[in-house]
Amino acid sequence: MAKTRMCSSSLWILGSIVLNFFLIMSHVYELKNKPKLSWSQVAAAEAEAVASISCSGHGRAYLDGLVNESGQPVCECNTCYEGHDCSRFLSDCAANADNGDPLFLEPFWMQHASSSAVVLSGWHRMSYTYPDHSYISAQLEQHIRKLHSVAKNAVAQGKYIVFGVGSTQLLSAAVFALTRNVSSPAKVVASAPYYPVYKSQTEFFETKRFDFQGDASSQIKNSSDNDSAQIVVEFVTSPNNPDGKLRKSVLDGPFVKNIYDHAYYWPHYTAIPAPVDEDMMIFTMSKLTGHAGTRFGWALVKDRQTYENMLYYVGLSEMGISRDTQLRALQILKTLLQGDGKQIFQFAYKMMSDRWDKLNDVISSSFNRFTIQEISPQFCNFFEQIRGPSPAYAWLRCEREEDKNCTSVIREANILGRNGSLFSSEDRYVRLSLIRSQDEFDLLLQRLVQLIVLSKVNNSAFQANDQ
Amino acid sequence: MAKTRMCSSSLWILGSIVLNFFLIMSHVYELKNKPKLSWSQVAAAEAEAVASISCSGHGRAYLDGLVNESGQPVCECNTCYEGHDCSRFLSDCAANADNGDPLFLEPFWMQHASSSAVVLSGWHRMSYTYPDHSYISAQLEQHIRKLHSVAKNAVAQGKYIVFGVGSTQLLSAAVFALTRNVSSPAKVVASAPYYPVYKSQTEFFETKRFDFQGDASSQIKNSSDNDSAQIVVEFVTSPNNPDGKLRKSVLDGPFVKNIYDHAYYWPHYTAIPAPVDEDMMIFTMSKLTGHAGTRFGWALVKDRQTYENMLYYVGLSEMGISRDTQLRALQILKTLLQGDGKQIFQFAYKMMSDRWDKLNDVISSSFNRFTIQEISPQFCNFFEQIRGPSPAYAWLRCEREEDKNCTSVIREANILGRNGSLFSSEDRYVRLSLIRSQDEFDLLLQRLVQLIVLSKVNNSAFQANDQ
Repeated sequence: MAKTRMCSSSLWILGSIVLNFFLIMSHVYELKNKPKLSWSQVAAAEAEAVASISCSGHGRAYLDGLVNESGQPVCECNTCYEGHDCSRFLSDCAANADNGDPLFLEPFWMQHASSSAVVLSGWHRMSYTYPDHSYISAQLEQHIRKLHSVAKNAVAQGKYIVFGVGSTQLLSAAVFALTRNVSSPAKVVASAPYYPVYKSQTEFFETKRFDFQGDASSQIKNSSDNDSAQIVVEFVTSPNNPDGKLRKSVLDGPFVKNIYDHAYYWPHYTAIPAPVDEDMMIFTMSKLTGHAGTRFGWALVKDRQTYENMLYYVGLSEMGISRDTQLRALQILKTLLQGDGKQIFQFAYKMMSDRWDKLNDVISSSFNRFTIQEISPQFCNFFEQIRGPSPAYAWLRCEREEDKNCTSVIREANILGRNGSLFSSEDRYVRLSLIRSQDEFDLLLQRLVQLIVLSKVNNSAFQANDQ
Repeated sequence: MAKTRMCSSSLWILGSIVLNFFLIMSHVYELKNKPKLSWSQVAAAEAEAVASISCSGHGRAYLDGLVNESGQPVCECNTCYEGHDCSRFLSDCAANADNGDPLFLEPFWMQHASSSAVVLSGWHRMSYTYPDHSYISAQLEQHIRKLHSVAKNAVAQGKYIVFGVGSTQLLSAAVFALTRNVSSPAKVVASAPYYPVYKSQTEFFETKRFDFQGDASSQIKNSSDNDSAQIVVEFVTSPNNPDGKLRKSVLDGPFVKNIYDHAYYWPHYTAIPAPVDEDMMIFTMSKLTGHAGTRFGWALVKDRQTYENMLYYVGLSEMGISRDTQLRALQILKTLLQGDGKQIFQFAYKMMSDRWDKLNDVISSSFNRFTIQEISPQFCNFFEQIRGPSPAYAWLRCEREEDKNCTSVIREANILGRNGSLFSSEDRYVRLSLIRSQDEFDLLLQRLVQLIVLSKVNNSAFQANDQ
């Protein structure tokens, strides 16, 4: 009896020791693999709690977002969805293909949550300057140079780099930098259809330094005239917004200065025939990584004086780009450059190419009521093969004689697009954004199909009545 | 014997069970109080690792900072310190009292590490806009309104709020907003000594809308003339940079528009006689919380059209302020407003007042070789009592006839200050920044004492030789 009791107690001891051993090892493992956090713990837990709020895949809650009565963050629903968890679809809602919000890249960052997160301490970079007395993070600059060598889209070597609050700020910075000490106002031009901000920014300042003069072709004769010492600044967008075509400047001459806006010159949107190597090239995070809200862009500049003029502009306007923004941009680029750095380009190209093919199929089925731009397959230096089109926008044309305003035509089918005339083209064109969220692209496609089917039905009915 | 053995084994069981219980409870406690982190864990651990690098209190390591050969972040040393841990003082180094880097507030944020940290997820606010289609975080706007009611320094009720990339951007935004549709160029003025950026920004754009016309007093006659329909924009800095005086506009009349730059109108730097209630008031995070690198400012604007003009300026220039910056500003303001929200003001006033008293003692001991501005004690609406001066800058005057360039005089004593002429005043004045780090303030004081002692010795020797 005593022996049995002793045996049972030995088992108890053994069991307990095994449990203790397991618990202690688990503690040791935790300590070793997940070091204890102190001051960052609350912020990290809060960020994860917000991220875990379910919005049915049609919305998102944010740390600085809408809150309910008890101060808790709530879902912010995508266009066309509502309800506390964004699960209710608003069937009458317009398909928004208007603005260029690059939300198609959001899933990529959800998939890379751990490497792309960054913690800002309360004391992070409080000073006006970095240790080299500049407004520019040397680490971020290095990563941008590496990025161009991976994407094989631009020659960064031998260029100065200026940062801007999005490429938007750099457009102005570049025009001001290229027109310092002009004897008479410089002429600023672009080739239609062009991004409307070139005109609105240039005109806004009402400066004595430059005037917007519309289409570049109007200046072809003047620019090659050596006697006219008037500076002409030509904006060249390549690939072009809205039509996705690769472009070169149309003007040439000793007084022509080019600003190449390469916002879309990434393997996402176009074949990269070769790395570009111009005197002034502007890029932006918005269309590369999808972080439009981060307001971060950069310019590669060949000439030292122009570079210094641009730095002066950014310094005088706002003492450089927020250090928080620069830290976040760095973390995003670090993630992007992990491994061989090709993942985001593969992801983005696949998605954009797929969307283009689907749209193309739908538009083709309209039997020429609608057309979109043609982009030929081309050899891509990045993918090292011939690849098809994957532009950021469709440049839709209403082909029927009576459809003079294409935006109104699609508006009646409950689709929002951007007027051709905004791009200094005809209203027979409308720009459709293909880079928004999947919800929005799917709805756009669905509405286009309905429009085309309805149009065919009406057409048949019309023909039937006519017979 | 068997009884003893049984007793000993019971003790073993008991001990082991107690240990089991303790370990299990410790696990439960961990789970309850420190919820497990997933995607934010790496970023949080990395931020803490960088923060824990020891730089002897004379430097700091940053996530985006300098790295050693193995890619690990290293210390960035404060001016006048070097070495891998910033422990070596450079005895010949100049005391930097030149720029207005508000690093005196850094210790406050170190003390509030947990509440001021914020985690940016990779997908945080990728869109161009907030859910209300604006570029402005509604949450941040609400916190700014609360801040003014706590600080009792400005009437935010009934005002529109515009955000800018620092107050720097808002200065231009305001001048452009107030001069839309002018028939002839507006005159822009300020009262000397004034912050040089008013002039350099206004002149830079070379716009047809306005010209910088120097000192406000030169326009007194014109501005009250009802027949002259020419707009005059007067910048009023209160308290003033460089001399810390509270100011009102000197011009009056139907065509005078004021821009009140209230960067320093916080209990840190001045008594708050009453909440200000002007048509256009500009504030900045830099001088409130010390986050100069964050580039965040705001304007309180009474007139709707002017507000819309400013929004247009910020939108056209760069599509609003980075969403990362807005999130961080929100977190910083949330921390500031914890409890009764008075802590930062008490901390900052104590430090600035203490620095001023020390400086004052040193300057008084120069027997009128040097003087600094006089600021009378005044009733403060915030502290609800009469309080002494605590300005951000000393406006030092060299009183000796021969000391015409005061910057050179102190430069010889190894002190860097900012020339009076930069503020459109005489070079007999020099601005000394009192808001930099403690290291820098201590060195400034030490160098000033040496200068004054040396000057007395020389003076005595001179008098002795003279007798």
